[in-house]
Amino acid sequence: MASYFGKHIHISIFGQSHSQVIGVTVDGLPAGESVDLEGLQRFLHRRAPGWDTTATARKEGDIPSILCGLLEGETCGAPLTAIIENTNIRSQDYNDLCDKPRPAHADFTAQIKYGGHQDVRGGGHFSGRLTAPLCIAGGICAQLLSRRGIAIGAHIRFIAQIEDKPFDPLGEQTEVLRRVQAASFPVLDPNVEEPMRAVILQAQREGDSVGGVVECMVTGLPAGVGSPMFQGLESQLAAALFAIPAVKGVEFGTGFQCANLRGSENNDPFILEDGAIRTETNHAGGILGGISNGMPILFRVAFKPTPSIAQSQRTVRLSTHTEEELHITGRHDPCIVPRAVPVVEAVAAAVVLDALLDQNTDHI
Amino acid sequence: MASYFGKHIHISIFGQSHSQVIGVTVDGLPAGESVDLEGLQRFLHRRAPGWDTTATARKEGDIPSILCGLLEGETCGAPLTAIIENTNIRSQDYNDLCDKPRPAHADFTAQIKYGGHQDVRGGGHFSGRLTAPLCIAGGICAQLLSRRGIAIGAHIRFIAQIEDKPFDPLGEQTEVLRRVQAASFPVLDPNVEEPMRAVILQAQREGDSVGGVVECMVTGLPAGVGSPMFQGLESQLAAALFAIPAVKGVEFGTGFQCANLRGSENNDPFILEDGAIRTETNHAGGILGGISNGMPILFRVAFKPTPSIAQSQRTVRLSTHTEEELHITGRHDPCIVPRAVPVVEAVAAAVVLDALLDQNTDHI
Amino acid sequence: MASYFGKHIHISIFGQSHSQVIGVTVDGLPAGESVDLEGLQRFLHRRAPGWDTTATARKEGDIPSILCGLLEGETCGAPLTAIIENTNIRSQDYNDLCDKPRPAHADFTAQIKYGGHQDVRGGGHFSGRLTAPLCIAGGICAQLLSRRGIAIGAHIRFIAQIEDKPFDPLGEQTEVLRRVQAASFPVLDPNVEEPMRAVILQAQREGDSVGGVVECMVTGLPAGVGSPMFQGLESQLAAALFAIPAVKGVEFGTGFQCANLRGSENNDPFILEDGAIRTETNHAGGILGGISNGMPILFRVAFKPTPSIAQSQRTVRLSTHTEEELHITGRHDPCIVPRAVPVVEAVAAAVVLDALLDQNTDHI
Amino acid sequence: MASYFGKHIHISIFGQSHSQVIGVTVDGLPAGESVDLEGLQRFLHRRAPGWDTTATARKEGDIPSILCGLLEGETCGAPLTAIIENTNIRSQDYNDLCDKPRPAHADFTAQIKYGGHQDVRGGGHFSGRLTAPLCIAGGICAQLLSRRGIAIGAHIRFIAQIEDKPFDPLGEQTEVLRRVQAASFPVLDPNVEEPMRAVILQAQREGDSVGGVVECMVTGLPAGVGSPMFQGLESQLAAALFAIPAVKGVEFGTGFQCANLRGSENNDPFILEDGAIRTETNHAGGILGGISNGMPILFRVAFKPTPSIAQSQRTVRLSTHTEEELHITGRHDPCIVPRAVPVVEAVAAAVVLDALLDQNTDHI
Repeated sequence: MASYFGKHIHISIFGQSHSQVIGVTVDGLPAGESVDLEGLQRFLHRRAPGWDTTATARKEGDIPSILCGLLEGETCGAPLTAIIENTNIRSQDYNDLCDKPRPAHADFTAQIKYGGHQDVRGGGHFSGRLTAPLCIAGGICAQLLSRRGIAIGAHIRFIAQIEDKPFDPLGEQTEVLRRVQAASFPVLDPNVEEPMRAVILQAQREGDSVGGVVECMVTGLPAGVGSPMFQGLESQLAAALFAIPAVKGVEFGTGFQCANLRGSENNDPFILEDGAIRTETNHAGGILGGISNGMPILFRVAFKPTPSIAQSQRTVRLSTHTEEELHITGRHDPCIVPRAVPVVEAVAAAVVLDALLDQNTDHI
Repeated sequence: MASYFGKHIHISIFGQSHSQVIGVTVDGLPAGESVDLEGLQRFLHRRAPGWDTTATARKEGDIPSILCGLLEGETCGAPLTAIIENTNIRSQDYNDLCDKPRPAHADFTAQIKYGGHQDVRGGGHFSGRLTAPLCIAGGICAQLLSRRGIAIGAHIRFIAQIEDKPFDPLGEQTEVLRRVQAASFPVLDPNVEEPMRAVILQAQREGDSVGGVVECMVTGLPAGVGSPMFQGLESQLAAALFAIPAVKGVEFGTGFQCANLRGSENNDPFILEDGAIRTETNHAGGILGGISNGMPILFRVAFKPTPSIAQSQRTVRLSTHTEEELHITGRHDPCIVPRAVPVVEAVAAAVVLDALLDQNTDHI
Repeated sequence: MASYFGKHIHISIFGQSHSQVIGVTVDGLPAGESVDLEGLQRFLHRRAPGWDTTATARKEGDIPSILCGLLEGETCGAPLTAIIENTNIRSQDYNDLCDKPRPAHADFTAQIKYGGHQDVRGGGHFSGRLTAPLCIAGGICAQLLSRRGIAIGAHIRFIAQIEDKPFDPLGEQTEVLRRVQAASFPVLDPNVEEPMRAVILQAQREGDSVGGVVECMVTGLPAGVGSPMFQGLESQLAAALFAIPAVKGVEFGTGFQCANLRGSENNDPFILEDGAIRTETNHAGGILGGISNGMPILFRVAFKPTPSIAQSQRTVRLSTHTEEELHITGRHDPCIVPRAVPVVEAVAAAVVLDALLDQNTDHI
Repeated sequence: MASYFGKHIHISIFGQSHSQVIGVTVDGLPAGESVDLEGLQRFLHRRAPGWDTTATARKEGDIPSILCGLLEGETCGAPLTAIIENTNIRSQDYNDLCDKPRPAHADFTAQIKYGGHQDVRGGGHFSGRLTAPLCIAGGICAQLLSRRGIAIGAHIRFIAQIEDKPFDPLGEQTEVLRRVQAASFPVLDPNVEEPMRAVILQAQREGDSVGGVVECMVTGLPAGVGSPMFQGLESQLAAALFAIPAVKGVEFGTGFQCANLRGSENNDPFILEDGAIRTETNHAGGILGGISNGMPILFRVAFKPTPSIAQSQRTVRLSTHTEEELHITGRHDPCIVPRAVPVVEAVAAAVVLDALLDQNTDHI
């Protein structure tokens, strides 16, 4: 019971997969910031299903309606609330789930936590659908950041074992970040798109699913943003990223691979470049001691394979305490990674904006 | 600014590497819980330097003094504050650091954030030394959990590329967790101790350092602990783990490897075992939708190589804006992973206890 | 910018007086609690304008629409969001306010804080209208409390200098609390209704307004609820009560009058009553050290006179920096105290439910 | 269980009346601020007992020892922790209290909350002694504010029914605030000191105690500080003020008396004064909509009579459930109001500094 986070940019998510609406309230946006609704719609479209052959055929309009917080298109200091109607609902698909928890879903744990009172339809409040309001919040934050020269982009780093080339840790140009954002299938190396699509569609044909890794970069963030210990940038980003359903790992800079490096390799030497202090390499992912060092922020997020698969699975019927076969019907993504890319960007935008505002409190 | 965390078990860390003391206040411990000071001392000893050939020769007594919060050895509801004196300080070793930031340390980012007013001696508030009070807090939490049948243990999973065998994801017996805790070099496979030591000492001889991965398991935690979204167990654990200096990655269950699995492999089927609902595998690391499912919690934490190395490094002198060589003297761990093992346990204990208390608020 | 509060019952208010909707998200309600929508509607009706001759003639339907968080009429663990459409808006009444701040309103301070970007129409986010969603949240909390034998009632203690008789500090029967809640003009002594109405209408005829005091009682709360220091019941109640527009004072038990008492008078002796420990008097208002002592919680809240009056007032035109006369048109309450009574109850219900849940974390 | 507060200036209080030390950690102080330890000592001396004939004869040195957070006398960004040794303890005075709760103390409620495990000696964590670390924190905050032209002063407004003249709501000069701070008995009208002392000593002779009211003013705070609703200045100040033991009421500006005013009287007209926008009167106490309007902040705090009195009182022995007489021995203030004056100032300083830093987050 904590579908909210943020110290200054306080984001509160509401809704269930099959409730009348899903939505978000963002409290703390600076006043006088224009919100580009068309740009926001384009951003949401990247997360919406139904637009790509690798995604679920479910159509979700994901058209946000902003209920308050704007005055003539600009933030007015009051909390901004936006909702999306849930129009394309087939609740009958989920009738048995309350009693037969789906493996790798939250059905069972929600059953224990809420004593059987949870809304199990479509995953309820645990549904990936709730990342749509998160994208509204983060999409607006990204607009504010973009205006200050801070760009955020992400791409598919892996799907199954198919690998896109990594971001240049020393920084991608804003155009590169924009181009990958505009792509219907966000990869840096155009040659990996087809193999990735193939592995997804192959899994789908076999009634199965695949996972992957998203890589995200934030450029233009000045040094000095973030705080020591529990409010470090890594702590805040990780806490918010693990709130995205299916995320099972987060690493910064060289991440788990830094276990394989010597200190002399992993330490990023400070150098001067055009009079500015930078690091020669960026194994740190732009963060030292929880605080940005002026280099690009770089991190990766691991997503598990979509838990909903067409193959028969084993589960336990709760009412009778018997092992049973489970056949999940309905329309599901064979791989959520492509649609997760803007969600990772959204989370990064919200956390970075929050940290940027927090930096203002370092001085009276 | 933000050396505190926790919703119920509120932990506030204070001190710098070279201040008079370092310490911690733990607010919210249930009253009437006895604190085993000897057990706590043993726990702290595992983190303390100077006891193993692979660690720095600096001796830190790490003897905690509990100033308040106890009455006749039991928690009394008031905040518990404990301090450790900083006795073995050689401040002269660090005189130049304020002007010549060490690569991969927080010297530079703290300089920007605090406008040059930070305490740079020994890393100041960013020093790994501050994990000692974290261990006091977590060590006490672990005692409370242990009394309720919840055991926490961790081991070195990797040092450089030397690999210990993994925990059995379906659960280790409490004895195994205890044995690895009691070991001076915490590995599961006794045969890897020597190769690991060798790689550490080899790096040291070369004026270098190595990193590694710690794996941690929590057994005995009932299903239903944790909350959706931003207060999920993964979010809370990750936020606290990334507060440990040098941590660059956190993954749960199969983690980044789940990108390589099909859904049909990664989904953990629910089964009945002695009448209890369990999962047949534990790719999820015991957490679904942010909430414990009754299986062991399993996660890994990546540590970068110790940034302080004896080899000459390149940096920029801030006052003159010139590139210079940096020679770090003083005594430093060639690998912090062995000493980080109890710190990971401590963080896990604090977060799990906090989440366990939070579960009580699911019902009036 | 913090239109949210609560540790367990997290209430987030959104909307402006003239935005499309106003509303609230309540996160943390225990699952499986039925919400009586008719009862909630009745509760909201007490706050709504237009139903009494002493209130503004503006009609506000205040019909809440619950968008999510309920499943078949019961809470499901997901955040509950409810909205009220803003239908009866005359924005032209407020056109000049951005430049000519109304005395005793937030127009001027919002202008400074939000740099002129705030929504000034009808007071924007600072409008008393925002107490409607607060009543939705508190009204639901009150239903949960009522089911556990905890009753909350409030009445008009003063309007101008007309005085209702006080609550019996040792406790009113639930029927008394219910009766005063059901009254269209909530006073204990029926003889004061007419004089109070008269003083309000007299002020209105003179283009003026009057203030007053609301007294509130919570019965049935067990001892031991609340925490020391900054999370004491008084701190939490006061923080939430001062969020109600126009509140300028809060006192508990004997309150400011206790300055006139000796300790021997003000100390409440502990006695036995039917085997239970109670206090013989209740000068403490049921709270000692921030924690409930099992006696009724009793407090009073001072409301200033409605700032919007028909009489001409003096202000400064911001754009020209010239002193000018201000004539406020539109429909305004000559006294908000009668309509504030349920708002005070709502705030008390939310805070008490939050504290009651928090008590569960005193023990593992 | 919540002995901490503050969003940016995070203050965490620890200790019991008879623990080894009491203390405080202040996290979030801007770096590079010098701390005048002598000035801090003078500030603490005003709260310390034993220096005035109207106070308890217990001597408490209240000499703070700053353990960390300073570097060469300046804040360094790390949390600042300070402690005071508890040297003058007579624990035997309190032996029976655990079983015989003192009326109007927290003994009984703590007994319920902590299941009998609380430290009852001297009131434990609920003791007024814990206001000493609060004064350390607030005293440091006041120094930072003073450097920015923000002055805070308080005086005794009432003791019993003896009344000092009120602050001029339009603002006292900083010298007046300083003079009243320097006084051993802080009143504005020198003629009321003797009557006030007389009423205190008369109560003491009769084995009794008296209460009173403290009035506090903050000058120099610019307009625009504070936030709407639950983070308004009134909410934040009240929450922190009610954490002071014995506080039973808080009111701003005209406070409870505004119930007696018409809107036309209570509304503060905006006027121009030397080109600046001010209000002609200050019934609002400098706060509109939770946000400062540039006029002095003015509030009053009601303190109940000291609960510890020499007269025999009635209570219930918990172990036997029998009504008994209670004779409190030991040394107690017949009136805590004079010593409470700096505590009120300290709380105001901490809250105002926190709000001032928060204002920085209104803009990117």
